[in-house]
Amino acid sequence: MGVLDIIEKKRDGVEHTEDEIYELIRHVASGDIPDYQIAAWLMAVYIQGLTPTETAWLTAAMASSGVRLDLSGIPGIKVDKHSTGGVGDKTTLVLAPLVAAAGVPVAKMAGRGLGFTGGTLDKLDSFAGICLALPHERFIEQVADIGVAITGQTEDLAPADRQLYALRDVTATIDSIPLIASSVMSKKLAAGADAFVLDVKVGTGAFAKDLNAGKRLAQTMVDIARRNDKRAVAVMTDMSQPLGRAVGNALEVREALAALRDEGPADLRLLCLTLGAEMLVLGGKARHLAEAYTSLEQVLASGAALDRLAEMVAAQGGDQSLVYDPDRLPTAPVRQSVVAPRSGYIQSVDALTVGRIAMRLGAGRQTKDDAIDLSVGIDRICKVGMQIEAGEPLAEIHARTVAEAEAVKPALLEAFEIGPEPPAPQPLILGRVSSH
Amino acid sequence: MGVLDIIEKKRDGVEHTEDEIYELIRHVASGDIPDYQIAAWLMAVYIQGLTPTETAWLTAAMASSGVRLDLSGIPGIKVDKHSTGGVGDKTTLVLAPLVAAAGVPVAKMAGRGLGFTGGTLDKLDSFAGICLALPHERFIEQVADIGVAITGQTEDLAPADRQLYALRDVTATIDSIPLIASSVMSKKLAAGADAFVLDVKVGTGAFAKDLNAGKRLAQTMVDIARRNDKRAVAVMTDMSQPLGRAVGNALEVREALAALRDEGPADLRLLCLTLGAEMLVLGGKARHLAEAYTSLEQVLASGAALDRLAEMVAAQGGDQSLVYDPDRLPTAPVRQSVVAPRSGYIQSVDALTVGRIAMRLGAGRQTKDDAIDLSVGIDRICKVGMQIEAGEPLAEIHARTVAEAEAVKPALLEAFEIGPEPPAPQPLILGRVSSH
Repeated sequence: MGVLDIIEKKRDGVEHTEDEIYELIRHVASGDIPDYQIAAWLMAVYIQGLTPTETAWLTAAMASSGVRLDLSGIPGIKVDKHSTGGVGDKTTLVLAPLVAAAGVPVAKMAGRGLGFTGGTLDKLDSFAGICLALPHERFIEQVADIGVAITGQTEDLAPADRQLYALRDVTATIDSIPLIASSVMSKKLAAGADAFVLDVKVGTGAFAKDLNAGKRLAQTMVDIARRNDKRAVAVMTDMSQPLGRAVGNALEVREALAALRDEGPADLRLLCLTLGAEMLVLGGKARHLAEAYTSLEQVLASGAALDRLAEMVAAQGGDQSLVYDPDRLPTAPVRQSVVAPRSGYIQSVDALTVGRIAMRLGAGRQTKDDAIDLSVGIDRICKVGMQIEAGEPLAEIHARTVAEAEAVKPALLEAFEIGPEPPAPQPLILGRVSSH
Repeated sequence: MGVLDIIEKKRDGVEHTEDEIYELIRHVASGDIPDYQIAAWLMAVYIQGLTPTETAWLTAAMASSGVRLDLSGIPGIKVDKHSTGGVGDKTTLVLAPLVAAAGVPVAKMAGRGLGFTGGTLDKLDSFAGICLALPHERFIEQVADIGVAITGQTEDLAPADRQLYALRDVTATIDSIPLIASSVMSKKLAAGADAFVLDVKVGTGAFAKDLNAGKRLAQTMVDIARRNDKRAVAVMTDMSQPLGRAVGNALEVREALAALRDEGPADLRLLCLTLGAEMLVLGGKARHLAEAYTSLEQVLASGAALDRLAEMVAAQGGDQSLVYDPDRLPTAPVRQSVVAPRSGYIQSVDALTVGRIAMRLGAGRQTKDDAIDLSVGIDRICKVGMQIEAGEPLAEIHARTVAEAEAVKPALLEAFEIGPEPPAPQPLILGRVSSH
């Protein structure tokens, strides 16, 4: 079947065969099909959708388009974690060493940030000297040795996904659940783990703006894993306000270190324990979530998770002393607070707005090639439900110059809604979807 | 508004503004938008459709993307004719001189054939020496002088349409009624006539496979004309069997010449009189269709239409003696009949099959750059409803070699269905849509 016939089928809403999808992805990977034909197919997929079967085939085809890591040399069940991306999401920095310290090996490939969501690699750059481009062999060795490694996704992983994504970005075909889910899962499958915990963010600061969209995305990703003979659990979590109280690379690292000392904000702790418990159960290190949760609390309290992060930083050539001395992490020269214009309770803190302001301050990239400033961002962000007096700080801006700090104040103030009554409690964990 | 926003709107089924459509077509014409973005938009249009307003804007924008002919120097109301293309459709060769002889100036830009439908220009090539690439000025002068000219569409006419069409061809977005209608009408608007008669073919040998599709295409084209302040009439006509009894370039010219001597097949005569009558009324040379019809019959009987064709051929540098001596037109060396395997009545003659066989014999092009053979084709095709005895000829193959003639016989035989009873009468004229 020719490419035109494949496009025509999806255009007319007909389900593809496995062969058709593999053929198309082979063409994409080999570059012997013009972009305009891929674009036409992507738009047809966007509008007509993909069935669960088609989505699973597409994911597998993309995963097979490049290198597939073989983690079988590492003892135990390898569990990978992925977040769909949010504002202030430093979870991996806490979760990876925490779960590793509890006995489940974590071989984590992470990405750089783009737009208003930060990337784990950018945050890790705060540890001077750290290598985030480990060769596959060394990456696998490190996980076998110390149970944890975080490195950048290499170009040879699911290259067809990268090509499709680049085209989606310029043809208004990004926001499609099967295309998002297959893009994420193709890289996860290629990275070789046995099971996956997926953090699906829901709210203004995430792709899924409401729980319904979040559920569909979660269900689609879990279903892809199941159809590719992998176990997966997706947890839908709130992203209407930023996670924790810090947004910005080094600021988030400081907060993650606090969380590893068990002194972090409550929402970040809850999220790490919730996702970590799923990882422990999938990794066979706990019989059920309650047991896993208790075990992780003990690990946190023991300081073993913090030590594991230091070991990882050292193994990757970074300055491990920073793990124990966060004051020496990159620091912005200017700190200014925005203060509450009136007394009351915080009703909402718009994650999207806070994320965009952090980007304006220099913490994020507008385009792939932008440089970022590790030190800047927003800290001590008041959380929804907090009671505040007029004149008390709502958040602290960390900026390069006074002018840059002043410039973002009005917008930052706008992100906070203050009302006379305490708002209805807003749960962090919104739901769960499991493959089994 | 950026191109991505425009694509996004159509993707989501939202109606474009006039500005958005003009902006997009400006980008297409100037080439400063990548093909993959146009392809994504075309697929979104294919699936989501265009409203009548959007379709009219798109047509006008494409018509404005290049040269627009100014026919105001030619006295009278200029009426153009277009056929959506069928098998054996030599109507223009009869209609243009006929209507011109009846007093309505005809400035006709025609095309080459592609696939199984023939092109008027290819047929006219049978008149040795004829120039079918008249400069615009000479084209207009000739219509002013002798009332009729037929020339090739120049590259500077609606160039944005040509670019869109080329992309549609390779992205499975050809068969969209608003895209087909706007493509046709953009070139018609640019060619400068005041009113249009549109022959919408319906049947296996046409784009519109059934009357419903034909009606929608007719309505869309007439609506585009109306919204661009032009009058138009569309006539839906049968294309389930070939028009007339000849398919192939010189063979069709012979049949057209017979029709101009009023000795042609009944269906071709009826179609020419029907479309011609519409043109006469639109051109203000008859008060109503009945008057126009009578007047055209008189012109035909007088021989004036044949003489007008000879004048046109001569004015364009062709050998006008061929008009009166059709035996000297290109002739194939081999003639072979296929004969009826049994006695009975012709139930159907599949136009698509006959068209494809003519193409195989060398009468049509599979790709734009193929050379064609003017002499070959199929003649004396029996019409639906004819009674035939076993062994009598169903059609006559005109081929380059005996082997080529033999090779197509089984397929040609398959095109004819013979049954014991006369079939239900099958009207040629299936309906009419008018802008006023």
